[in-house]
Amino acid sequence: MPSPRLHIALPPWVDPFVDWERRYATIEDRMDLVIELGREQVRRATGGPFSAAVFERDTGSLVTVGVNLAVPSHNCVLHAEVVALMLAGARLHSHSLRAEGMPAHELVTSCEPCAMCLGAIFWSGVARLVTGATKGDAEAIGYDEGPVFAESYAYLERKGIEVVREVRRTGAQALLAAYVAGGGVIY
Amino acid sequence: MPSPRLHIALPPWVDPFVDWERRYATIEDRMDLVIELGREQVRRATGGPFSAAVFERDTGSLVTVGVNLAVPSHNCVLHAEVVALMLAGARLHSHSLRAEGMPAHELVTSCEPCAMCLGAIFWSGVARLVTGATKGDAEAIGYDEGPVFAESYAYLERKGIEVVREVRRTGAQALLAAYVAGGGVIY
Repeated sequence: MPSPRLHIALPPWVDPFVDWERRYATIEDRMDLVIELGREQVRRATGGPFSAAVFERDTGSLVTVGVNLAVPSHNCVLHAEVVALMLAGARLHSHSLRAEGMPAHELVTSCEPCAMCLGAIFWSGVARLVTGATKGDAEAIGYDEGPVFAESYAYLERKGIEVVREVRRTGAQALLAAYVAGGGVIY
Repeated sequence: MPSPRLHIALPPWVDPFVDWERRYATIEDRMDLVIELGREQVRRATGGPFSAAVFERDTGSLVTVGVNLAVPSHNCVLHAEVVALMLAGARLHSHSLRAEGMPAHELVTSCEPCAMCLGAIFWSGVARLVTGATKGDAEAIGYDEGPVFAESYAYLERKGIEVVREVRRTGAQALLAAYVAGGGVIY
């Protein structure tokens, strides 16, 4: 009974959907991309209504994107944030996005992270976290974010991770609403 | 610039090292396997000094094992617990280990989980968490477990996850000490 091997890839529609060459100048530009990605994910029904991306913080250069793949991949860990961060490590050949000689990175996510993703953000080495919809918005449609507390964010901030919340929140809420309207499963 | 694809597999020594057919009757038997796996990981220097396994809680049948692969895999998410849980999802073809018709599962881990792994445990659907070394033991050798609080465990327990701590703690501490003695990098 050999252990399984895991092969993880984004759905094939993602790469052509994204403008990889563009510089996303503002955090609103970056969140707009993330929300558009989430809307397309909902339209194509390739996973849960959550999306994320890693950028170089100061240039707005796009490093990787992620969408939620947990249910279709049989992998409870594959939230959008985790997917974007794992791919960023692979792209930059480093377990840390704060390694010697690297520019500062940030994670932009359509919704405030669950407990697992918040921990992954801590480990990833990103210098900034930017969120759209709130924990309450996700809970309002039936998701459980797990043990995330005010102290969890305070911990990140003490470790030097800047947190910017509720960027394009209305658009991010609309993404969640579109999933519910389409009959998406809350798992 | 197509997105990377991830290929995740345990180091080749792991499968032959483990007795897959045995029923691990007690939680001490299960922790002994996990600690032996961690000791071998340290001896072979294939990653950090952390190991874990998923068992069927009531039969002691072994489902999957995991070791820390973060640094060699360039993937900050690949802690031992996450590896064991991702492989369990793949083996059982389900994002949840608590799906209809499944027996109860448990995660046995050589050390109390970091914030990310604690969140992953919450999502995984395991019915029980068994830990060896404590958060303080990991911190004593320089690891940072992230935002884990007493309330984090209370949250798991309220959601029906039983937590059993400090099983074979001395052996699990010795695993951490062996890593330090061997000059292992604390990242």
